[in-house]
Amino acid sequence: MPEVIVYLAAGRTVEQKKGLMKDITDAVVKNANAPIDAVTVQIIEAPLIDKMKGGVTFEERLKK
Amino acid sequence: MPEVIVYLAAGRTVEQKKGLMKDITDAVVKNANAPIDAVTVQIIEAPLIDKMKGGVTFEERLKK
Amino acid sequence: MPEVIVYLAAGRTVEQKKGLMKDITDAVVKNANAPIDAVTVQIIEAPLIDKMKGGVTFEERLKK
Amino acid sequence: MPEVIVYLAAGRTVEQKKGLMKDITDAVVKNANAPIDAVTVQIIEAPLIDKMKGGVTFEERLKK
Amino acid sequence: MPEVIVYLAAGRTVEQKKGLMKDITDAVVKNANAPIDAVTVQIIEAPLIDKMKGGVTFEERLKK
Amino acid sequence: MPEVIVYLAAGRTVEQKKGLMKDITDAVVKNANAPIDAVTVQIIEAPLIDKMKGGVTFEERLKK
Repeated sequence: MPEVIVYLAAGRTVEQKKGLMKDITDAVVKNANAPIDAVTVQIIEAPLIDKMKGGVTFEERLKK
Repeated sequence: MPEVIVYLAAGRTVEQKKGLMKDITDAVVKNANAPIDAVTVQIIEAPLIDKMKGGVTFEERLKK
Repeated sequence: MPEVIVYLAAGRTVEQKKGLMKDITDAVVKNANAPIDAVTVQIIEAPLIDKMKGGVTFEERLKK
Repeated sequence: MPEVIVYLAAGRTVEQKKGLMKDITDAVVKNANAPIDAVTVQIIEAPLIDKMKGGVTFEERLKK
Repeated sequence: MPEVIVYLAAGRTVEQKKGLMKDITDAVVKNANAPIDAVTVQIIEAPLIDKMKGGVTFEERLKK
Repeated sequence: MPEVIVYLAAGRTVEQKKGLMKDITDAVVKNANAPIDAVTVQIIEAPLIDKMKGGVTFEERLKK
């Protein structure tokens, strides 16, 4: 506790995702008064055809 | 804002999923007074072995 | 199945939220080939102090 | 209703996941007064590089 | 890890919800090979006006 | 995009939660290559009776 879920379109590198989860973990420890071992972060990566913003899928956005 | 997550068993086509996300986007714009660019929709598709309804996995349901 | 979760800042009326859930239900029935009785939609409404966009809470955004 | 989402690092067998969803279904029927046909459970399995606990990804944890 | 989220319409007692979370915890320990201290369960209870099934809000369903 | 959801037991101050959301926003901008205006964070705060860790509700944990 706390648990953090990140909803993300596919396309980041392993290192980017690891850095993201690490910085979020640090943000939780700093602000929520939680021991680091209690903090879990999970990224839920969507294929570009399974995510839409503004009525346009991320697959279509990339093609533009 | 708002963000919409759809939990779905695998098996829909790309076109079905795109239509679903588009119609949900329109529903949000119409009812929640949100600009279309602010609306995100993500489908989280479960492999049929990872989703259960009524005590039966979707893999088992398909076999019937 | 499918299940839809809508993450929303507080402030919509009961009628707006009902219309939103109804239109999303219809979008799922139309596009995902699901019987209407199987479709659930839940709105998770955040107090304005518990939601942020662009680094600014919705409470702060409203004050502007 | 109710809907249950399980966030899990990859690595369980099909049988383990099925048993988990079945026992959760039974827990809901028993405690929440819900008919079994209304209960859905979905497992969202993260690749080991997409989940972190205590500042360490599950990929790194497995290597130790 | 794992983390379990239960989406529920309001109306269960404290004891029902506690029993539900406890039985889900036990299901995770038994099937997912996880130590009990690592298992978190959170119930997200929707006001009856914020949840819909089959195109009907839970508030409307209760009135019938 | 991306959207971040934080599942948290009740008890943090408004300032703590705002700091948490702000630092998570910065973590996303830094690591996921996203413009700040596209980043949303929502905290879902559970009443202490609606969250359990290790088979014990947070209400019970506080009493110890």
